[in-house]
Amino acid sequence: MKDKPLVGILMGSDSDYDIMVEAARALQRFDIPFEMTVSSAHRSPQRTGEYARTARQRGLRVLIVGAGAAAHLAGVVAAESTLPVIGVPVDASALKGLDALLATVQMPAGIPVATMAIGKAGARNAGIFAAQIITANDPVMVKKFEAFKQELAEGVEAKAAALQERLVHDGF
Amino acid sequence: MKDKPLVGILMGSDSDYDIMVEAARALQRFDIPFEMTVSSAHRSPQRTGEYARTARQRGLRVLIVGAGAAAHLAGVVAAESTLPVIGVPVDASALKGLDALLATVQMPAGIPVATMAIGKAGARNAGIFAAQIITANDPVMVKKFEAFKQELAEGVEAKAAALQERLVHDGF
Amino acid sequence: MKDKPLVGILMGSDSDYDIMVEAARALQRFDIPFEMTVSSAHRSPQRTGEYARTARQRGLRVLIVGAGAAAHLAGVVAAESTLPVIGVPVDASALKGLDALLATVQMPAGIPVATMAIGKAGARNAGIFAAQIITANDPVMVKKFEAFKQELAEGVEAKAAALQERLVHDGF
Amino acid sequence: MKDKPLVGILMGSDSDYDIMVEAARALQRFDIPFEMTVSSAHRSPQRTGEYARTARQRGLRVLIVGAGAAAHLAGVVAAESTLPVIGVPVDASALKGLDALLATVQMPAGIPVATMAIGKAGARNAGIFAAQIITANDPVMVKKFEAFKQELAEGVEAKAAALQERLVHDGF
Amino acid sequence: MKDKPLVGILMGSDSDYDIMVEAARALQRFDIPFEMTVSSAHRSPQRTGEYARTARQRGLRVLIVGAGAAAHLAGVVAAESTLPVIGVPVDASALKGLDALLATVQMPAGIPVATMAIGKAGARNAGIFAAQIITANDPVMVKKFEAFKQELAEGVEAKAAALQERLVHDGF
Amino acid sequence: MKDKPLVGILMGSDSDYDIMVEAARALQRFDIPFEMTVSSAHRSPQRTGEYARTARQRGLRVLIVGAGAAAHLAGVVAAESTLPVIGVPVDASALKGLDALLATVQMPAGIPVATMAIGKAGARNAGIFAAQIITANDPVMVKKFEAFKQELAEGVEAKAAALQERLVHDGF
Amino acid sequence: MKDKPLVGILMGSDSDYDIMVEAARALQRFDIPFEMTVSSAHRSPQRTGEYARTARQRGLRVLIVGAGAAAHLAGVVAAESTLPVIGVPVDASALKGLDALLATVQMPAGIPVATMAIGKAGARNAGIFAAQIITANDPVMVKKFEAFKQELAEGVEAKAAALQERLVHDGF
Amino acid sequence: MKDKPLVGILMGSDSDYDIMVEAARALQRFDIPFEMTVSSAHRSPQRTGEYARTARQRGLRVLIVGAGAAAHLAGVVAAESTLPVIGVPVDASALKGLDALLATVQMPAGIPVATMAIGKAGARNAGIFAAQIITANDPVMVKKFEAFKQELAEGVEAKAAALQERLVHDGF
Repeated sequence: MKDKPLVGILMGSDSDYDIMVEAARALQRFDIPFEMTVSSAHRSPQRTGEYARTARQRGLRVLIVGAGAAAHLAGVVAAESTLPVIGVPVDASALKGLDALLATVQMPAGIPVATMAIGKAGARNAGIFAAQIITANDPVMVKKFEAFKQELAEGVEAKAAALQERLVHDGF
Repeated sequence: MKDKPLVGILMGSDSDYDIMVEAARALQRFDIPFEMTVSSAHRSPQRTGEYARTARQRGLRVLIVGAGAAAHLAGVVAAESTLPVIGVPVDASALKGLDALLATVQMPAGIPVATMAIGKAGARNAGIFAAQIITANDPVMVKKFEAFKQELAEGVEAKAAALQERLVHDGF
Repeated sequence: MKDKPLVGILMGSDSDYDIMVEAARALQRFDIPFEMTVSSAHRSPQRTGEYARTARQRGLRVLIVGAGAAAHLAGVVAAESTLPVIGVPVDASALKGLDALLATVQMPAGIPVATMAIGKAGARNAGIFAAQIITANDPVMVKKFEAFKQELAEGVEAKAAALQERLVHDGF
Repeated sequence: MKDKPLVGILMGSDSDYDIMVEAARALQRFDIPFEMTVSSAHRSPQRTGEYARTARQRGLRVLIVGAGAAAHLAGVVAAESTLPVIGVPVDASALKGLDALLATVQMPAGIPVATMAIGKAGARNAGIFAAQIITANDPVMVKKFEAFKQELAEGVEAKAAALQERLVHDGF
Repeated sequence: MKDKPLVGILMGSDSDYDIMVEAARALQRFDIPFEMTVSSAHRSPQRTGEYARTARQRGLRVLIVGAGAAAHLAGVVAAESTLPVIGVPVDASALKGLDALLATVQMPAGIPVATMAIGKAGARNAGIFAAQIITANDPVMVKKFEAFKQELAEGVEAKAAALQERLVHDGF
Repeated sequence: MKDKPLVGILMGSDSDYDIMVEAARALQRFDIPFEMTVSSAHRSPQRTGEYARTARQRGLRVLIVGAGAAAHLAGVVAAESTLPVIGVPVDASALKGLDALLATVQMPAGIPVATMAIGKAGARNAGIFAAQIITANDPVMVKKFEAFKQELAEGVEAKAAALQERLVHDGF
Repeated sequence: MKDKPLVGILMGSDSDYDIMVEAARALQRFDIPFEMTVSSAHRSPQRTGEYARTARQRGLRVLIVGAGAAAHLAGVVAAESTLPVIGVPVDASALKGLDALLATVQMPAGIPVATMAIGKAGARNAGIFAAQIITANDPVMVKKFEAFKQELAEGVEAKAAALQERLVHDGF
Repeated sequence: MKDKPLVGILMGSDSDYDIMVEAARALQRFDIPFEMTVSSAHRSPQRTGEYARTARQRGLRVLIVGAGAAAHLAGVVAAESTLPVIGVPVDASALKGLDALLATVQMPAGIPVATMAIGKAGARNAGIFAAQIITANDPVMVKKFEAFKQELAEGVEAKAAALQERLVHDGF
């Protein structure tokens, strides 16, 4: 990541890393430079506030924020920055991420958090969505996205072909 | 409220007033001076942060915080103050306060929010609980609490007596 | 709306209009031209697919999609367009929007839908979030957003002042 | 499966195979030829649309569709075909299939999806239900179903007998 | 309804009539004769069992069953008949139909109940789905269904046109 | 109620009366004498404990206990009495009785509470179930129950007949 | 179990045995003879109906019924017998027994099922509750129950004593 | 723990020890002496009542109460003591602690229980919250809390630094 980062990935705890690294991988897929760090809404509020308040001037264009349980981090960051904030609920409590989902998505009017699915699928989609935002009308990036959609479709066809072999193998 | 306030009641929106006034009434019941104001975790983060950071030096001993939906306010205040913070989830969305309950109670280790029931019962209990905290070992206050418990029990007996009349009235 | 629309607002049923108009109002607030129409994932799949597939070439930059119950519309649109898609779950069934929330947010890896809160707050935030995406680094728009945040904070202060009067009026 | 298939089994991901193969087994039980493939509502919308639109003319009589998370596949297929569509919610996310259940069953008026239980029981019942549809008034098939019901009842009696032995073994 | 009924609509309580009549209307739309009655799984088990056991020989081809709360009726009917059974969960308790949905859909392997959405949308779709089953390959009926789909799509376009007028009226 | 009561009906608040009176009506239906009073697990624990501890020696045979929200009353009574305790969850909070249901039914091994449905249906069934317990093998009472079941079934048939008239009236 | 059984334990599937054997153990604890068998509401409805209809004349006094998923068995048995029916929801699906709980407890007015907690605690309590019903006023049995309560309390005291040792061991 | 305990930790079952020991550790962190024991609301109600009624006179200042399933223990203790009671819901049933959370937090007006998160995070926070209550305005304790907050923030920074190394290691 030598280029100046355009996306900041923030997580409330280092135990969220295995989830949030999916966002990083998605950004890599679209060659979008990013940074990634830990800051807690509750344990390090100053650090979180400063991160959010300086994000735009440091050149970031989108913030991706993952947190579990009473997941306040995305909302707190959105309160302090005018950048678009994408929230990823992490399954980190007995309630299996339902708490994190509701605490992330049910934001009051005025301060949006764009919420993704609970867990890895959500983190990956956060990276893709950040890429979509940054793409805007850049024709090179639009092409990349068209290729990505094509690749998804071809992946399905490959799996469908493999399934036919499996069906034969399983005696159907 | 001429005395210097010992409890601060904070709500995320003025639409929470009808709920949160129950906390004020409970504090009045125990002659504990309080203050009450509006500040949003998301719409006025500076105001909220400043309120929380200056609360102890301004003489407050307990903070009561009510909010609905993705209710981050109590957690944000708890992150910025060493005072005990009591959270009241408010039913302010399609999910009937379940979102506010989970967003208030499921705090990570390190930053407690003492959560009460959703709505008016919770707000009233927040006031009573703040009074219990302030009471500590003050024998006058302990007496007040014993009287309060007595009163609750007598209230039940009065209602039980009234019920007997109603049963007769209803022909049982 | 004389300017060429940059945002398309789509709803699954005309009964969602009272909710989704909040997105329109938010876009107006930021002077972002938009268009608004009805198309169902289930009742008019061709219309929906065509709308999604032609959106970018027609100059749209963001799609806002509201739907209730088994809310498939945002996902279906996201499957057919490379534009960022924002989903608004609408409370339109006995389950109070929980069905629409889960059907909108729990998208599989590869096809993100940026989900907002259930109902009017979510629709309003969808408009604001679309404006944030379009803002990118445009300094005029960034200024508008900073003014908007300032306005939100001042609104809270005005409500806090009004609350003090109400407290006096209510005899506290 | 040499005969021309009467039932199409579609799944959103090859990871659903272990669940959806139960539908295949149930159809085998009633000697109903079927086909089985993968197509995603989101990753391969064209493939899915084409599958649905051509299903009847290719001789299929019923479609069985399994998907997890924001399970849109059954609804999308039902939007594009006049054949009866049976949906199987798959447990494929932190929410244990509740998301897939609600996204499958809560279809708006006009486009039914006949929803089965989450997971293997649901997939098996989807196969049985497809067989019931195809049976119509064919007396041979009706006999098969009567035999199947008889077999279920006898299975219970066999298990009840085995239980008596186990009770003796366990010292009751 | 002079013709011999092909569909039996059963409801657990006459208070479900306003919901279940939607199934009747859908069947009328497709000119499919039906009968409609009340029988409870719990209050009239003999009546229910007899209804289910004689349904096929009386000429019925599909059974539609609506019930609320611990909605056992569809499952009990499915246990006693080899006809396809469609279940409609009715919102008839404090839990808003979630109880009826789970009690209807979560059938064990062997005895399927094809479950529709909670309430009126579900009842209407039950009627449509019954019509799809009966249609089979009857080319006249298939034409009717194609016309119905066309009608749904045109209904959306008419609503989209009306929305444009409303937008002008509302000053957008 | 001149006879010595055999059933005690206890409710946590006089606001539960309209629900719990259904239990009284059911007991009347079976000519079983009962008493009815208010006592709170939380506001009047002594009164509650004493009621529970003296219930058997006062001649009661079954206790019916209704409460809402964190409904502890039935469990507390069951802890203090060896009589069978029937719990009725009351819908008395934002969570619509789900809280009361779980707080009543999820008792630990050793102290059963026989839980009925939320609200009026549950209260009525509590009365019927108490009557079943008291019935034991009393042949007069068993006859009454057989008559009651007969009456339920005839009620369904009467409603089915009325429905036929309504169908004609509604033009089916 | 040489004596004539007073309690019948019924389970919907032999896979419920490990749960339901807890009911048997509780009955053994109170020297109450019982029988235990498998019958399904859906797979063997005749067997189930016959079991329920003949239960009283065969000398049974209480029925304990365990089932999972769309747990209809207890309700179906209660519909066919005037004996008291105790229901035990079994955790046997992706929804962790919530489906079985709601399908068991939310019975309509007229047909009570006395519902216990999900799983082993519930099965054990079902046995204890059946014993309480059979106890009635039999002074020998009442003594047994008083001894049982005493034993429970002593068990707690023994555990409290053991905890003190563990605290020392853990260095507190 | 040689000093006279200021906090009593009570749990409903010794199986809750691994959770509740987190409260003990938090109190140790702040040098607050405590005691810890087992008592059940249901199995040992006398012991529980006596513990609660004598707590204040024995010098305790705060009670921490953990319980699972139909978690009545905190409410029962709060009913019998004027001390502040902190409740910790324990995940001890198929419902993953949601039952314990609702049974602990949804207390009626008059009897507050300050509820923490489900499980270990909640137990740890209960200890911290008890320390905050006892701290009151003691300047030594306030310093300790400020140091604790500082430590939490430094812990985040240390984890953020470690994450940078991991990112390099993972090739980003």
